[in-house]
Amino acid sequence: MSTTVTPALEELGKVATLITSEEELREFRDPFAFATWDDYTASAVVMPETVEQIQQIVRIANRHGVPLWTHGAGRNNGYGGPAPRVKGSVIVSLKNMNRVLEINEDCAYAVVEPGVRWFDLYDAIQAGGHRLMLSIADVGWGSVIGNTLDHGVTYMPYGVDMGMQCGMEVVLPNGELMRTGMGAMEGNKAWHVYKRGLGPTPDQLFMQSNFGIVTKMGVWLMPFPECYMPLWLRVWKEDDLPRVIDTLRVLMLDGTIRMVPQVMNAMLLGAVFSTRDQWWQEDTPIPDDVIDRMARELEVGRWLTRFALYEDEAIADLKFQKIKAAFERIPSAEVWGEKHAPEEIPGLEHPAERIQGGVPNLEWNQMTAWYGGDEGGHIGFSPVAPLTGPDAVAARALLRGLVEREAGLDYIAALIPTNPRSFVHITLVIFDTKDEAQARRAYDTAKLLVRESAKAGYGEYRAHLDFMDLAAEQYSFNDHAYRRFNETIKDALDPNGILAPGKSGIWPKGMREQR
Amino acid sequence: MSTTVTPALEELGKVATLITSEEELREFRDPFAFATWDDYTASAVVMPETVEQIQQIVRIANRHGVPLWTHGAGRNNGYGGPAPRVKGSVIVSLKNMNRVLEINEDCAYAVVEPGVRWFDLYDAIQAGGHRLMLSIADVGWGSVIGNTLDHGVTYMPYGVDMGMQCGMEVVLPNGELMRTGMGAMEGNKAWHVYKRGLGPTPDQLFMQSNFGIVTKMGVWLMPFPECYMPLWLRVWKEDDLPRVIDTLRVLMLDGTIRMVPQVMNAMLLGAVFSTRDQWWQEDTPIPDDVIDRMARELEVGRWLTRFALYEDEAIADLKFQKIKAAFERIPSAEVWGEKHAPEEIPGLEHPAERIQGGVPNLEWNQMTAWYGGDEGGHIGFSPVAPLTGPDAVAARALLRGLVEREAGLDYIAALIPTNPRSFVHITLVIFDTKDEAQARRAYDTAKLLVRESAKAGYGEYRAHLDFMDLAAEQYSFNDHAYRRFNETIKDALDPNGILAPGKSGIWPKGMREQR
Repeated sequence: MSTTVTPALEELGKVATLITSEEELREFRDPFAFATWDDYTASAVVMPETVEQIQQIVRIANRHGVPLWTHGAGRNNGYGGPAPRVKGSVIVSLKNMNRVLEINEDCAYAVVEPGVRWFDLYDAIQAGGHRLMLSIADVGWGSVIGNTLDHGVTYMPYGVDMGMQCGMEVVLPNGELMRTGMGAMEGNKAWHVYKRGLGPTPDQLFMQSNFGIVTKMGVWLMPFPECYMPLWLRVWKEDDLPRVIDTLRVLMLDGTIRMVPQVMNAMLLGAVFSTRDQWWQEDTPIPDDVIDRMARELEVGRWLTRFALYEDEAIADLKFQKIKAAFERIPSAEVWGEKHAPEEIPGLEHPAERIQGGVPNLEWNQMTAWYGGDEGGHIGFSPVAPLTGPDAVAARALLRGLVEREAGLDYIAALIPTNPRSFVHITLVIFDTKDEAQARRAYDTAKLLVRESAKAGYGEYRAHLDFMDLAAEQYSFNDHAYRRFNETIKDALDPNGILAPGKSGIWPKGMREQR
Repeated sequence: MSTTVTPALEELGKVATLITSEEELREFRDPFAFATWDDYTASAVVMPETVEQIQQIVRIANRHGVPLWTHGAGRNNGYGGPAPRVKGSVIVSLKNMNRVLEINEDCAYAVVEPGVRWFDLYDAIQAGGHRLMLSIADVGWGSVIGNTLDHGVTYMPYGVDMGMQCGMEVVLPNGELMRTGMGAMEGNKAWHVYKRGLGPTPDQLFMQSNFGIVTKMGVWLMPFPECYMPLWLRVWKEDDLPRVIDTLRVLMLDGTIRMVPQVMNAMLLGAVFSTRDQWWQEDTPIPDDVIDRMARELEVGRWLTRFALYEDEAIADLKFQKIKAAFERIPSAEVWGEKHAPEEIPGLEHPAERIQGGVPNLEWNQMTAWYGGDEGGHIGFSPVAPLTGPDAVAARALLRGLVEREAGLDYIAALIPTNPRSFVHITLVIFDTKDEAQARRAYDTAKLLVRESAKAGYGEYRAHLDFMDLAAEQYSFNDHAYRRFNETIKDALDPNGILAPGKSGIWPKGMREQR
């Protein structure tokens, strides 16, 4: 690799800031990889500040056959961070492309560059005095575009399915600039208000893929509701989970709840608000009686659901009564919450109430310190299942069994219905990144989960670098017709295979033996 | 063409029912084309009944280089009907693939084949006793998949943006079968409940394109609400339009109205509920004083908006009060409506109240008889604009001016906000199909509208066969980067260019000179 990379680096260094020192490159590794692991290390990082510079970088990479790997803010924690799939790739870090290009008050949208973080867009909305709310991810340091392109979850009404994104500008693998939707027409007024154009809509094609570098994106915002009402549902019995899930589905299908809830087990809340050694000092998974004690002492129950209403006050009152009545048919359940004016959200004490209210923070990131100090890491294993009680029970039995039995780790879970019909079962495989054996066991377990979940009919919504290929391998209908379709498009758009080879298991021709 | 087509037809005839008689082929012409026009006529129609037959048909077409053109029910009125873009194409009519494959009550979805019409799916839901509603188009004879693939509008909450479709099966141009989303995993349980998979999501790529033939699709249904409340808003002054639009945007953005309204001018209602000669006997466009009389006598006002609530009864009451108060700040405005149980919808008198309630009918189709007898035709000219008062005024001035001045036809319009931020300005260029001069003038006017609208920043959401190329031509950012992107994908997936050449202005290599 180095022989082809060196002359390319000289050219790249003339285009934009280039990082090549080992010390500085350390920041662009998977933050949770064990110190000596070097499977996913970059040879350099280039930091463009303009679209034209990105185009130049792509053209240089084509000339020299150098693989690129792109990120916005470079977080993506639990899925490999900013690290590239192919060792020696040049990372195109878009951190310095961090301008909020437009905020439209009437039509309630923003247009951002890829380095704009949740914090940045939130600040820009505040600075402009706009009465608009942004649906954000759990941790505020991520980039808006980066999160969207990886199918990342956010929690307000526009977090449901693909509600938030509207209109893109993309640098294609050949260096050409394309605008999607109505933006494909010069001077069109509807680029960021209508999600399609005339002909096929390619926007979703640039997510979880390696078909282009997104340089601008429209983001839909929500006007301040009269009232924001964060809600909590707690059940004390582990076996109440299926009734929670079935009730949630009914309330989401009928539009009572029109956002993305999180159904968290006691252990996840334990990881956010405490450390493991407060509860259990053994290497073995925490047993049920200790989980019960944790559930009681932290007052979170066995399953705690966070969700919220964004409504006129009178409607919030009606919906709250209905929600309370529906869930409290479950004997061990309690529902509570308080109404707030949108202006009060930044002052709310609980970080989840701020997250669901669109005010970014970092507090939720605490959870990875579970196994010790500041050195905790996690792998996100995240299959999708229908939002039904039986599926929740089946997925829990499968995943808890494997995590505890095979890895000897704790089962830390959040069930996230990203629409009224399905949920992502986020399984946080948390480990001490300084303990190589534990880290290795965590990665091995995640791979086992991928295979066993697929056998049970559940596929990953997003895959960690270390098992992207394995996860994609499970989508094998008709001799991998979907993968072959992606490869056909990849080869047509990127004949030199320079853009993010291996992303989501999509390899350019000539590199497919790496799969 | 005939030399290549003949041997192909022999093979096709062995696979499925084949139609070649001139008499029977007449049914597959654009129903509104003048009798002697033959630009868009097929050489044959083949009617498969299984996916395997479609795969065989595609393989035969590849061997012989015969262009195919696909439809579901073959309606698509106003955009060219079932007719192919390239004269002499073989139409693959999927009318006989009309099975409803699944209706899932818990997760509220159906899975259908491409020949299933709104009528058919509605009937299947009723027959199964499901308390589920289907978001439908204005005219019940169209196919669910066909309408979806052409970005067709439906009106209930799942009609907003791309709310309704989830999971596809597609025959690719090489005859291979692919399933999208979670369906790419054999036995996956979330195919029709989660809209994406692992990697890029191709579903939108098969809409308004020629990249595949969709053979199965998931359709999301809505559980019966407690209460269905169709609403009407009437304003008597033409100049109240911008205030209607601005108020609508606010009420849609805040979630009060969460479906797809229609803002119709008096003339459109005139065309549905009367004939032109009742009001005006001249060839010239109907003047404003006559429109005022029509508005009064039909009691529709200058602009009539149809919309609806689907809510718990108490919430419907609150929302109705809010909506009434908001619109009645416009002095000439009146808002009214009545609550109904979902079971009462089939008995409602007004066809629009049944359409918005998901009960299909044909009454809305009456409008094309405006210029005389049963022989009326229309061209749909449908640009997209931001949902703001100033844009509504600008689009109206432009389109009314051109339709009346250049074509001497009446300005018949429905403004349809398919989401809270934009509307499609459906301009129905209605003409007497037996009057060749008037028909020709209508087509010429539509082409003028395409060009002039693009200059003003408004692009078509969907294009008639006769000006697909012209409409696509307007999307020219960066030397037609979007068209070249589509061509790259087209050539990679369909190297022989057999699937729907010319659809949405996308031509395979070797045929691009036709553009």
